Amino acid sequence: MDVTDYFDEFTRRDWQTTTEGTVRMAVVGLGSFARNRVLPVFSATEFCEVTLLVSGSPTKAGAVAEEFAVDRVIGYDEFNSGVATDRYDAVYVATPPAFHREYTETAARLGKPVLCEKPLATNVHEAEQMVEACANSGVTLMTAYRLRAEPAIRRLHELIQDGVIGNPRQIKAGFSSQLLDNVSPDSWRFDPDIAGGGALIDLGVYPLHLTRFLIDSTPDAVWAETTSQSPQFDRVEEHVVVELLFPNGLTASCTASLNAHPDNRLQVLGTEGQVLIRDPFSGRMSQELLVERHDSQTKYVGPSVDEVREEFDYFAHCILTNADCETDGEEGLTDLRIIEAAYESAETDKQITI
Amino acid sequence: MDVTDYFDEFTRRDWQTTTEGTVRMAVVGLGSFARNRVLPVFSATEFCEVTLLVSGSPTKAGAVAEEFAVDRVIGYDEFNSGVATDRYDAVYVATPPAFHREYTETAARLGKPVLCEKPLATNVHEAEQMVEACANSGVTLMTAYRLRAEPAIRRLHELIQDGVIGNPRQIKAGFSSQLLDNVSPDSWRFDPDIAGGGALIDLGVYPLHLTRFLIDSTPDAVWAETTSQSPQFDRVEEHVVVELLFPNGLTASCTASLNAHPDNRLQVLGTEGQVLIRDPFSGRMSQELLVERHDSQTKYVGPSVDEVREEFDYFAHCILTNADCETDGEEGLTDLRIIEAAYESAETDKQITI
Repeated sequence: MDVTDYFDEFTRRDWQTTTEGTVRMAVVGLGSFARNRVLPVFSATEFCEVTLLVSGSPTKAGAVAEEFAVDRVIGYDEFNSGVATDRYDAVYVATPPAFHREYTETAARLGKPVLCEKPLATNVHEAEQMVEACANSGVTLMTAYRLRAEPAIRRLHELIQDGVIGNPRQIKAGFSSQLLDNVSPDSWRFDPDIAGGGALIDLGVYPLHLTRFLIDSTPDAVWAETTSQSPQFDRVEEHVVVELLFPNGLTASCTASLNAHPDNRLQVLGTEGQVLIRDPFSGRMSQELLVERHDSQTKYVGPSVDEVREEFDYFAHCILTNADCETDGEEGLTDLRIIEAAYESAETDKQITI
Repeated sequence: MDVTDYFDEFTRRDWQTTTEGTVRMAVVGLGSFARNRVLPVFSATEFCEVTLLVSGSPTKAGAVAEEFAVDRVIGYDEFNSGVATDRYDAVYVATPPAFHREYTETAARLGKPVLCEKPLATNVHEAEQMVEACANSGVTLMTAYRLRAEPAIRRLHELIQDGVIGNPRQIKAGFSSQLLDNVSPDSWRFDPDIAGGGALIDLGVYPLHLTRFLIDSTPDAVWAETTSQSPQFDRVEEHVVVELLFPNGLTASCTASLNAHPDNRLQVLGTEGQVLIRDPFSGRMSQELLVERHDSQTKYVGPSVDEVREEFDYFAHCILTNADCETDGEEGLTDLRIIEAAYESAETDKQITI
């Protein structure tokens, strides 16, 4: 088994079957992620263009529309009323989580496929309604797990599934940031009704979802602890640790913090080897992959790939080819079920069966 | 704050106050660790010599005595009867855990200080009796946590205590090996009555004890899961994950495995930085230390130091200077209390308050 084979054509799009077509996107919500990370990549995508902006703040939206050469800006009420539906084919929902349901349900009613940011909603109940609304309308609902479009993650998935490291037994994954360096203390991120929670739902969903993807399984029990020390984090948790227990005995220790030294890394320990990856979640860095198998060690630093571009092209490609979406609404809903169980565990000090 | 200052005089013995004296040691139990790792280092120690071997197998012991130029070999019964007490000043107990109590109690009765291998005993009850016996006789009891004599670990402790990485918030530490590559399937290591358990008590005690040392604290609650997939591990656990919850909100995710790719590493994530160390537990490797603080990164590869030699010199130095021993019997007992709580958690699926 030659591990280096997995690194040939590293950035290949294993999902791509066509080179034709364009999906016109409406971007709903113009927060910093939409403005700084999403709108700039449309010019680099193969299958997308942005043709409509939806915002509650026309002044802000006007300047943004000009910057990215988008002809039309409408408000949320207009969007809900079906204004300008002929201008777009699909919808990207980038509002704070509490508003995901409303705009996803509007899109479903209008027959437009939806790419919705993570977490899919602030709780399981809302997410179930979103999944149901899209299913009833027959439109695709994709949860915006951009890490799934990341070549390093996809190559890692392939080599784990092929048994390169034997049977995975223990996973450790973490994601930390310093939120207060990036947002003001009155940000919606500190409001549990809008954000759904703190470190767990915002960052913890990355190691949680990545673990589930890499081993193609869903935990049947969870234990978690949430802690806060800083006064800013009196309503949402500052730090979290979650243990996922999988049916085959594999355990995954996932941590997240909104107020610690910024770091993110993953280790998958198997019976015959292990893989380690630095920066799986930061989105634009070139990742350092290390694969150990018995006495051999292979290190690979992949080229820098914009996973947001990959994500949008993957979504559009699903629409254009009428393909099932890997990270559909059910995937986002499953993660929210695990997250709710984790919050219940942290609240009750009990291990929770899912 | 210049991180590199911590790496000056990296291998310094911060505990050393004298250069004089020799402690004559009796080595009780001649298993592979005693033969391969301990006996060869006496010639390199500053404060120790080995003057007596105690073994249940005279044939094996004769050859070993010759190899290491030890004049006298006696059996376990003779040791218990106080034979040859004029030949040694202190005792090193290296038998399987189930026999630690008997020989430690003998040493206490004979007024000889004891260095006892980890785990201190197979359970809390035995360890309590050992601590009490040594206290009553006024002899030092040291738990053989050789990692505590490791320069890289001591430097790490200093810089964490000095606040170089801010407040530690999350720790991840793991230790895995492939036991079946090193011992036969009928080894005592697979017998819970002799070993006290599997991955947790044998390897898990390293990340557990290291965490406690680095942050100078003791957890007030614990959660754990033990799993076994292989038939050889039907009586002791193959893998374990333990979560330690500390009073200040810090959480530590500790894993161990007796049947996975050999690896050991530690990450301490703080509010202002982090430290990572590769191979903290393997004993003879030169360790790679990485200290990150805000945007600065310092990497240090320490010189190779034999931590067994350091451990024996530390023990002898405590005896010679009449100093308190950092890793006394209480330390070993505290870890066993946490380990017993962890086994209870794994058994009951409940978080256990300690």
